[in-house]
Amino acid sequence: MKKLDKINSPVDLKKVSAAEIPDLCDEIRRFLINNVSKTGGHFASNLGAVELTVAIDRVYDPEIDRIIFDVGHQAYVHKLLTGRRDDFSGLRQYRGMSGFPKPSESRCDAFITGHASTSISAALGMARARTLCGEDYHICAVIGDGSMTGGLAYEAIADAGQSGEPMVVILNDNAMSISQSVGGTANMLSHMRTRPAYFAFKRFYHRTVGRVRPVYLALHRVKEWLKSYLLPENLFSDMGFYYLGPINGHDEQSLEQALRYARDMNRPVLLHVLTLKGKGYAFAEQQPELYHGVSAFDPAVGIQDGEKRDFSAVFGETMCRLAEENNRVVAITAAMLEGTGLKHYSEQHPKRFFDVGICEEHAVTMASGMAAQGLKPVLAVYSSFLQRGYDMLIHDVSLSKQHVVFGVDRAGLVGADGETHHGVFDVSFLRSVPYMKILSPANFAELQAMLRSAVLEMDGPVAVRYPRGVEGEYTQCNTDDEVLLYSGDALTIVSYGVMINEALAAARVLEEHGICCDVIKLSRLDNIPLPVVTESLRKTGRLLVAEEVCSAGCIGEHILTVCQAEKIELKDAVLLNLGEGIVPHGKVEELRALYALDSDGIAYAAMSILGKVEQQMNEAKE
Amino acid sequence: MKKLDKINSPVDLKKVSAAEIPDLCDEIRRFLINNVSKTGGHFASNLGAVELTVAIDRVYDPEIDRIIFDVGHQAYVHKLLTGRRDDFSGLRQYRGMSGFPKPSESRCDAFITGHASTSISAALGMARARTLCGEDYHICAVIGDGSMTGGLAYEAIADAGQSGEPMVVILNDNAMSISQSVGGTANMLSHMRTRPAYFAFKRFYHRTVGRVRPVYLALHRVKEWLKSYLLPENLFSDMGFYYLGPINGHDEQSLEQALRYARDMNRPVLLHVLTLKGKGYAFAEQQPELYHGVSAFDPAVGIQDGEKRDFSAVFGETMCRLAEENNRVVAITAAMLEGTGLKHYSEQHPKRFFDVGICEEHAVTMASGMAAQGLKPVLAVYSSFLQRGYDMLIHDVSLSKQHVVFGVDRAGLVGADGETHHGVFDVSFLRSVPYMKILSPANFAELQAMLRSAVLEMDGPVAVRYPRGVEGEYTQCNTDDEVLLYSGDALTIVSYGVMINEALAAARVLEEHGICCDVIKLSRLDNIPLPVVTESLRKTGRLLVAEEVCSAGCIGEHILTVCQAEKIELKDAVLLNLGEGIVPHGKVEELRALYALDSDGIAYAAMSILGKVEQQMNEAKE
Repeated sequence: MKKLDKINSPVDLKKVSAAEIPDLCDEIRRFLINNVSKTGGHFASNLGAVELTVAIDRVYDPEIDRIIFDVGHQAYVHKLLTGRRDDFSGLRQYRGMSGFPKPSESRCDAFITGHASTSISAALGMARARTLCGEDYHICAVIGDGSMTGGLAYEAIADAGQSGEPMVVILNDNAMSISQSVGGTANMLSHMRTRPAYFAFKRFYHRTVGRVRPVYLALHRVKEWLKSYLLPENLFSDMGFYYLGPINGHDEQSLEQALRYARDMNRPVLLHVLTLKGKGYAFAEQQPELYHGVSAFDPAVGIQDGEKRDFSAVFGETMCRLAEENNRVVAITAAMLEGTGLKHYSEQHPKRFFDVGICEEHAVTMASGMAAQGLKPVLAVYSSFLQRGYDMLIHDVSLSKQHVVFGVDRAGLVGADGETHHGVFDVSFLRSVPYMKILSPANFAELQAMLRSAVLEMDGPVAVRYPRGVEGEYTQCNTDDEVLLYSGDALTIVSYGVMINEALAAARVLEEHGICCDVIKLSRLDNIPLPVVTESLRKTGRLLVAEEVCSAGCIGEHILTVCQAEKIELKDAVLLNLGEGIVPHGKVEELRALYALDSDGIAYAAMSILGKVEQQMNEAKE
Repeated sequence: MKKLDKINSPVDLKKVSAAEIPDLCDEIRRFLINNVSKTGGHFASNLGAVELTVAIDRVYDPEIDRIIFDVGHQAYVHKLLTGRRDDFSGLRQYRGMSGFPKPSESRCDAFITGHASTSISAALGMARARTLCGEDYHICAVIGDGSMTGGLAYEAIADAGQSGEPMVVILNDNAMSISQSVGGTANMLSHMRTRPAYFAFKRFYHRTVGRVRPVYLALHRVKEWLKSYLLPENLFSDMGFYYLGPINGHDEQSLEQALRYARDMNRPVLLHVLTLKGKGYAFAEQQPELYHGVSAFDPAVGIQDGEKRDFSAVFGETMCRLAEENNRVVAITAAMLEGTGLKHYSEQHPKRFFDVGICEEHAVTMASGMAAQGLKPVLAVYSSFLQRGYDMLIHDVSLSKQHVVFGVDRAGLVGADGETHHGVFDVSFLRSVPYMKILSPANFAELQAMLRSAVLEMDGPVAVRYPRGVEGEYTQCNTDDEVLLYSGDALTIVSYGVMINEALAAARVLEEHGICCDVIKLSRLDNIPLPVVTESLRKTGRLLVAEEVCSAGCIGEHILTVCQAEKIELKDAVLLNLGEGIVPHGKVEELRALYALDSDGIAYAAMSILGKVEQQMNEAKE
């Protein structure tokens, strides 16, 4: 790694000679393979973007120019080249380096990204600020073809093209989202990919003719005519972008040349770059979707089969069964075929499976149209991405009480992906959606039962929220709205989902200290009356609610409101939750401990309420 | 109106001879002018869509086929032709006919619309349901060029084109959103408009060649070559749609012919129709944006100047002043130039004004990019449309604590537009956005002061929410977080925004009955401690919160949580609000009365808490 070891800043990178670049890129790939295989993280997309990122960081000054990596999966090489090489051992770990761009980590990270399709909007805002403030720096958005399917990117392309603001949008086109790209956008891009590159012509034209004003003017109309009738147009040029490409994304020198040219055109330019996801690591080239985001693995043998049965897998299995039983059941995903556990379903029921691309808004409204005409659609979507569909949930689903089921995956803390990906707002925003039933299974068996009931028995909108990962010790299936799992007079502990394991563990700890609590598991989180909880509170007078969500609009607030309505006087209440909801990355257990949401934290809070902590401390002193 | 009077169903419409159609269209226009000028409502877009709607309702069977009118502004003619002629006197009035498509009103309304860009998604869902269920009916989405700027429409076009599902999307292109259409999409459409129509060629080709299989196959490659190199491509054909047009949207016979042809092509077809917004009413043709949505007016003289100074106007004035004071202030709107009061601002500061089209998502993220690079962006957006930006508020603004100010217009009940437009979820969803400050001015002076403070003094994300319409009696400017306006021991009444007028009126009613209350006006609605409220509650022990928002996540819930944390025991608490948040159309006063949120309702609730109602009734009996 003798070249890479010398690069501690963007300035160092610029000193590398052109001849040395291929070796440097090799070193970068080896670094990524060695490191990400140890820590886990986004993998294949970074391998594909090595030459591209080297070119970007050589052409631009990332400390001043603003480079925005869409969705942030492919920012590792940029981190590596901008002084963060030694931080890779702590990648995505608690207090370690984030897996996504983060301005608080480095001046070279221009904007937080994690959700798809935001980069062009942010870049345009920055470009306008630059121009209005009379400043002089460059703006570059790097966006994958997957992210380009999102409507937000289209809105931004339309505005940016029209604005005339100097900026470069690099379309990093590997024909993949996380899975294979789908839909009309993918088709359009595939069409563009195969067109004869006319970049060379354009460059020649500008170099030779563009600089001589009278010739330029005389030829302009000829050119426009030529362009309209001979050169194929595309969405981007229609929208006002100058389209360059497609060019080979693994030829660093060509990339630099094209990028410098684009940067200096002083207008909105789209540079279309073709890359191979997983490039340079044979296993990843063959199965890029498997290597998109990885856990630790041995690079010599690749990722070994040994699929853990997690909530997503159980969701997928259950969907297969429901689809067999009822031919009106259909499944929808927004570009998360594997992530949502629907791979097997999609093979079994290809006609009743719809991948709409990274288009959560469309997915929600389309599902509602399906329900209106008699299907039973189930949309599987990550909690933090469903935030995109909030208006459609209200306006298109709930207003007309359509029976759409939402499989809200990755609800609660997700771990290493961190602040952009934790599913900690869904309880709050789903509670505000009229008529929305919210079901919260605590284990696999409950997920199976609740999903079945949501799809085949219930009516109107229903969300079934379940976490990333596996179930805990509590594996009983009990789908009653409220279930009393542990009984005692001192305190009422309420929780739901897999957090119930922490609550039960806390109750056992408390029992060892002679404190007996009611522990109540909720299955329904919408605004229902909760008679079991209120009965318990009439007895204990003390409430502790433990939940992995933001505080505003949490279930604890709802329970307090119910208590008030039922005139239950509480001696004490503690709402344990994630506060404002911005939670760092780290292992879920570490993060729970951080927010006192693990069994120790819950037990401690319970003892505080009961005055036992002080008592114990005094006893210890004596 | 002798022709129109005979049309009581879609069947009657189909009996009209082609020769009589122009007269019928004239009658429809006169009907609209006579009626909408009395009731108010959406006007210019309906005048523009007369021939188009007649053609649609003649070509399709609206009771079985599914016709979805995007954004619903232009559905009046459809209502008129499908048995609802007599309901126009009650248009948009409490218990009268809705101004938007409503399946509960008629089987001929396929889907609730009110927010832009949803129709193609819903249509595709329906088309897929039709195909999977093996049924046989047609699907048609009617979408304006304004709605086509929304990313949701793009997502749907990409998915629908690729799906191959038989459906027709009619692009009703009048080159206007509510105001002039802007951005790249508008540009692209304007380009398409001026291209030579090749509809005739296409039709000829299909009629003569398309039906003979061997000839078809032989010529297919020639056609594809021709299409690629001679016929201009566009976004829609790139996405897999068969593009037809542009055709004259005021020639009903041509429309019928084209629509039948499109309907029977058995694939996704985009029919591009050119219409004139306001057609047939000279004033509206000249100023279509003024006649988009109207209050009652005299058709003989048109709408007279006499602009009422409402919250939006005060917002606009204040923005002008702030922009003069600080050259980093910029304003953004999502196609609501007039509605948000920014017309004058846009003329004074054209370089610091950005209309991004109907693209709320992009507007939020773009604003964040601006803030990141030193501008002070203010996004003016209606409360119910900001729902679209929920994810961007969290992910792009709050995570990085960008100083973006949101002018949240139409917060609370909006009146005649009804359920799709009431701004009754924003308190709930904004409370869940981390670090979001939420300011609630109760009158014009407070809006001025709070907006100034939000833009020039505060940091991080700030929402200033204000209602549709004018201020009430309470005109004092007091921007403290909590203000005690009325003092008494019996009860604590908490409210905010213009609702404070109802609370004060209730307090006066109560005083007449010998009941003295604390009335506290809140200016800050984010999750702050509220010491004045808690002090008052320690004194009174009784809480009444009156707010024009949905119950889940309302301020009342927050206050109860604060009380619990501060160990304040309440003898009683009543949270008056809009329940699940789906509120019909009608005058704001009527709707407030419906939910007991007017002064009488608040006073009654207060007396109920205090047991005075029963007492009074007993006294009356005696």
